Formats: sequence, C-alpha cells, structure tokens
Amino acid sequence: MELSVPNMLLAAKQCEIQELKHLGVTAHLVGAVGHLVHALQSERGASTIFLASSGRRFEATREKLIEESRSLELRVRSSFEQQLANPAFGSARRFSLMAWVLLGLDSLAELREQIAHQRLSPERAVAAFSRLIAGLVSVIFEAADAAFDPSISRALVALFNFIQGKEQTGQERAVGALSFASGICDRQHQQRLLHLIDAQERCFKSFVDFADEEGLRHWRALQDTPVVARLERLRRILGSTQPGAALDVNLSDEWFECCTERLNQMWQLQIQLVEGLQKRSDILILEAEKDLQNSAGLLNHLMARPPECTRAVDRFFDPDARIDAALTAPPNGEIGTQLGHLTMELLQVQSDRLARMENELESTRRALNERKIIERAKGLLMARLRVSEEAAYKLLRQTSMDQNRRMVDVAEAALSLPDFIAP
Amino acid sequence: MELSVPNMLLAAKQCEIQELKHLGVTAHLVGAVGHLVHALQSERGASTIFLASSGRRFEATREKLIEESRSLELRVRSSFEQQLANPAFGSARRFSLMAWVLLGLDSLAELREQIAHQRLSPERAVAAFSRLIAGLVSVIFEAADAAFDPSISRALVALFNFIQGKEQTGQERAVGALSFASGICDRQHQQRLLHLIDAQERCFKSFVDFADEEGLRHWRALQDTPVVARLERLRRILGSTQPGAALDVNLSDEWFECCTERLNQMWQLQIQLVEGLQKRSDILILEAEKDLQNSAGLLNHLMARPPECTRAVDRFFDPDARIDAALTAPPNGEIGTQLGHLTMELLQVQSDRLARMENELESTRRALNERKIIERAKGLLMARLRVSEEAAYKLLRQTSMDQNRRMVDVAEAALSLPDFIAP
Repeated sequence: MELSVPNMLLAAKQCEIQELKHLGVTAHLVGAVGHLVHALQSERGASTIFLASSGRRFEATREKLIEESRSLELRVRSSFEQQLANPAFGSARRFSLMAWVLLGLDSLAELREQIAHQRLSPERAVAAFSRLIAGLVSVIFEAADAAFDPSISRALVALFNFIQGKEQTGQERAVGALSFASGICDRQHQQRLLHLIDAQERCFKSFVDFADEEGLRHWRALQDTPVVARLERLRRILGSTQPGAALDVNLSDEWFECCTERLNQMWQLQIQLVEGLQKRSDILILEAEKDLQNSAGLLNHLMARPPECTRAVDRFFDPDARIDAALTAPPNGEIGTQLGHLTMELLQVQSDRLARMENELESTRRALNERKIIERAKGLLMARLRVSEEAAYKLLRQTSMDQNRRMVDVAEAALSLPDFIAP
Repeated sequence: MELSVPNMLLAAKQCEIQELKHLGVTAHLVGAVGHLVHALQSERGASTIFLASSGRRFEATREKLIEESRSLELRVRSSFEQQLANPAFGSARRFSLMAWVLLGLDSLAELREQIAHQRLSPERAVAAFSRLIAGLVSVIFEAADAAFDPSISRALVALFNFIQGKEQTGQERAVGALSFASGICDRQHQQRLLHLIDAQERCFKSFVDFADEEGLRHWRALQDTPVVARLERLRRILGSTQPGAALDVNLSDEWFECCTERLNQMWQLQIQLVEGLQKRSDILILEAEKDLQNSAGLLNHLMARPPECTRAVDRFFDPDARIDAALTAPPNGEIGTQLGHLTMELLQVQSDRLARMENELESTRRALNERKIIERAKGLLMARLRVSEEAAYKLLRQTSMDQNRRMVDVAEAALSLPDFIAP
C-alpha cells in the first residue's frame, strides 16, 4: 500500500475494526465462562450438602447439576477453541489463564468421582470448585482489562464485579450450609461468613459504579425482594451466635433454598448483563464497518483527484487537538483543495474520537488497576505472614485507616518493600 | 489445533513472540523518528537565524541541514511504510498519529519555500517546526505506552523524556537566539525561556528515573562539561535582564554555538539510547524464539505419551500463583505423570513471568498516565482560559501547592469538571 495520509487513516480504521472483532470473540467467551461459573456454583452447593450428609441427600440433584455443568463446559471449550484458532485475537496473558482453566476442567471428572465416593471433605470440595471458579472469573477480569472500547470496558468491569460478588454469595451459601448442617457454630466458619458478606458488598458497590442504567434498575429491583429479608434474618443468626453454641440443623434447608433463590435472581441479571454486552459489541462492529466503508469510499473518490494540500502546516501535531492558540493561525493563506480539507477533517474526527475513548477508558482501567494492586498485596501478605485472605485484607484496611492513607497506597507500599514482613 | 493445555501454552508463547516482533518494528520506528527530530531541530535553529537576520546569515548552513533532514525524512517514511505493510503490528492510535506526522512532512517543502522567500516571521517558523517535532515526539510516547515488556517500556519512557527534554533545549536555543539577535530583552521571550528551562529539568528528572545504568553514566558525564558552565552564564544574562533593557547582540553567536554543542552532546547520548533499545529488543526476540523451540520440543515429546494428569485439581487457579495455604494440599494423592508435572511446571513458569512483567510494567505505565492526565488538563486550561502553556502549567502547580494535593490529582479534578472555568 502506498504511503499516504488517506491510507494511514484507513489502516487506523482497520485496526479499530480488528480490535472490535476481538471484542466480539471476547463477549462470546465471557458469556460462556459466566454461564459455566453459575453451573459450577450450583454443583458446588449440591456437592457440599451431598458430602456433609454422608451421601444421604442431594444425590439426584447433584447428578442433574453435573449434567448441566458438563454441557456448559462444552460451550466454554468451544469458545476456547475459537480463541486458539484466532491467536491474534488473544494475548499471552489470556492464553495462559485459559491453560490454567483447561487444566482444571480436565480434572473435574476426577474431582466428581472423589465426591461420589465420599473420599473428600466438604471443605476440600468447596475449595476445589472455588479454585476452578476463581480461574474462570480471572478470565473475565483479563477481558475487562484488555478491552479498548470504553463502553465495553465499563460493561465488562460491571460484569466482572457482579460475577465476583455472586461467587462470594455462592461461597456464603456453602459455608452457611456447612454451619447449619453441623448444628454448631464454628468460629472459623463465622469469620469466613462475615468476610464474604463484606466482600460481596465491595463487589456490588463497584458493580453499581460501572453498570449501565438498565443493569442498575434490575439490580435495585433485586434489593426489594422478600428473599432478601429472609436471608438477612438467617445471616443474623449465623453471625451473632456465640462460637461453640448450637445452631438449628433444621434451618439448613431454609438457608440453602433462600441463598439459591437469591443466586437465581442474580443469575437472571447476569444473563441480561451478558446479552447487553454481546449486543453492544455487535453494534460497535457494525458501526465501525459502515464507517470504514464510508471513509474508504470518500477517500477513494478524493484520491482520484490530484492532491494539492501542501500548505497545511497547521492544526496538525497536537494529538488531542488542543493547540496553543498563539501558534494556530496558518502561516500564510488557506489550505488548498477539497482533498486537503476532507482528509484533515476525517483525521481530526478520528483523532478526537481516539483521544476521547482513551480518556473514558482511563477511569475504568484505574479501578481495575487498584484492584490488581490490592489483590497482589493481599497475596503477598498471605504468603509472607501465612495468614488467611480475610486476615490479609483486614491488615491492609486497618493500616489504611491508622495511617489515613488510601488502601491502594498502603498496598503499593507493601508491594514495594522487598523484605516486607509486617506493616 | 486441538484444544489442550500444551497447545494453549504454545499459543501464549507465540503471542509473546508476536508482541516482541511489534517491538522490533517499534524500535526501528523510534530510532528513525528520533533521528529526524534531531535534524529538524538543527534546521529550525538555522532557519530562525536565517529569518531573524533577514536572510543575511546561515543561508548555506540551512541548505546543508535541509539536505540532512530530507534524507532522514526518507528513513521515517520507509519506517512508516513498514508499519503500513504490517497493520497488525500497529494500533488505531499509532496510525492516526503517523497520519498527522505524514501530513506535516508533506507540507515541509512549502514551509521551506516560505522561509527561503522570507514570507514567514521567525516565531511562526519556530512554531511550525515545533509542531511537526511535537507530532514526531508523540509517536515515541505512544510507542512507550504500548510496549508490553517492562525493560523496553522503561527504555522507551527514558528515551521519550530525553528527546522531549532535548526538544525543549532546542526551543530554548531558538528563543534565546531570537532574544540576543533582537538586542532587547522581551518579557514574553524571557518567560518562555524560564518555562523551557523548568520543563527541561522535569523531563530530565523523569529520564533519570527510568534510564538504565549505562544511560545514567553517560548523562552524568554530560553534566560535567565546560559547555554547561558557559550555557548557565548566558542563561543568567537572559533570565535576569530587565524586560525592555538592552541585550548584547554579539552574544547571539556564542549562545547559538553553546546550545548547539550541548544539543550535539545530547544527540550522542540519544544515539546510544536508541542503539541500546534496538539491541535489547533483538535479544528479547531471540530469547523468546529459543524458548518457544524448547517448549515446543519438550511438549511434543511429552504429548507423544498418553496424558494421564487428571488429578491436578491443585495449584491451579491463582493467576499470581499465590494460593490460600489452607486450601493448597491436593485433594487426594499425587499428580500422576511426568507430562502432568512438566506441563504444570511450564505453565507455572510462564504465569509467574507474565505476572512479574505486569507488576514491573505498572510503575512505568502509571508515570506515563500521570503525564497524560497533566498534559490533558493543561490543554483544557489553555483552551478554556485562553492562556499559554506556561500559564496553564503554573496554574496547575500553584493549585497543587495551595491545596497540598498531588499535581495529577489537581489535573484530574480539573478534567472531571465539565463546566470548569478556573480552579
């Protein structure tokens, strides 16, 4: 291709379309992954009760849920295959995450068999499912981090936070079910439960920050359902019972049903979020393609005439189109031809749009970035101090409050000290 | 390609190599662009004196420098062609910036003719060259922003700051030359000069933060040359003369030579920085390719045996490989085969490396991001308040000091107020 301003412009447009097509693949991937997460959450719940009841309960339910997980696993696998067939649409980071997830999917059969033969404690089963789900959720996080369109990026961040929050609701169901089923209040379970409630609130707060109007409306409607009142009452019992004291085993079923209903309501919202995301990415691709055809047509038409636009020393070299007013007037005379005018106008429109998109992306990226830093610091503290996730998080939050610094700054300070032992 | 963990791993490696090859193209582009910037700086200097002396001085020098700029322009064009031939190696942002630059290069002939016929004021000529140079420098900024390897990203940020600082040195030469040549101290020139000195210091501070050992050593050596003492004496005269008072016209030549010597010294360092960058990117590509062959060989060898690694529910789903210690022990027994072990080890090594790279990239990205935010806020203030770049920068700095907030936070506040008039 000949080196010319119009060709550069077309190349820029084609890059945009290419990036949007990645988005299409990503939206498909995220939808499939989110669906499997939901299915595995249900299977985890049923498996926990199956194990906690020594195989007396939920055997059939569990079988049914396994079938569902399996069929959704196939969708995720086909979505991974699509990525593998289009390596240019992925990144090293994404393939690496998908490899971890695949390793986990490959080992699901073995996990299920161990559960079927009750060779696993319920806690271990919860942990194994939760790790696989965490891997799947991190695929969604990576997608949000890699998206270059601001509206899609916001939608993915909202979705990620929602799925993450819902996953914590799912874990809460599992831990609460274990507590009620055991008939006794265990301090560790109780602490974990309170942490999970806290973590859900943080996720849903971020969800609210990034969700669109429709998502918000749906979410608000979810806060006003009878199941919330029932859930809060049971949460109060789990949270305020003295460790060591008895819990009513009969509440076990009510707890599970109540959490399940809540999760199913959330699942409806998740479906809506994924559909919105896919619709949005389809629209963007269509728009960009139309735009490309228009620009291409316009530019080809113009290129048929001889270019004479050589006086345009002006308006140029400020990528954000903000030029020191004192330096702006053209050196002498006007910019020549229609070609010059139109090319420059197209270029200006495109530069403006790219700059605006980048501006809008930044707040989303920053939010993701802060989360990454806090997560990493938490991981570091867990490894160095050999403490639980809750303890690491509390330590960061306490230090942040004591020193009156933002949590992300405390997290960063923790990460930057190579021989950091305690804050 | 069949969906398997080893194939995912290979795809991740191939993505990395692809990204490194972009880096190779980028390093070439940045080298050519940096070289042209230097040539245009010299041409700008000679053109200013030519115009300020009403064509009596520097006519031959200017001709010679134009020839040099032209040959370097061809190198930049061929580097742009290389990008155009590999659209997948670019981005919409980069092509858009290159289109602006190309528009400017296309208009250079006209600019030169206007200068030759003295139809342009020296100030306008400086402005026109400076805009083209600013466009070229923003191509380097974009490259730094897009680099995914931490060592390359740091090298590009150092180079960008160095070239930006050197450009301000070049502008200082032009403004100082105008001042001395006019024989009188102009308040506006004086303000601009002080601003440029200040801006240089900021750029070189950032350069020092990101440069490697060799670059730093070279830079420190540059601070100890006789030319610095001469330059500082002349700067003192320009900076401390009362506006309206006379300046010694005879110092004009000394100023120009002195600045030129300083710029040439900087140019030597720039060459070294670009060479270092290209060498580093070549090494990375070679290493990654060797690595790919090794992994591919290893994995193919292993794939020839039947895979049995289905017990590995473990160590998996934490992308940063930091797993809650309480959940870590394998559910039951060991992970089976050599294939399982080796695949997981390769995957672990790769995930660890990607996470480490991302950590290291973040501080660089943050530095670039803060600069972008401050630049944007400056642009906004310039447009809204119709003030110069200096005034906008001072306003941000003053507000930052008054409110005891970081400048980037003030800049962000300014950007987030849609109807912002004055801080």
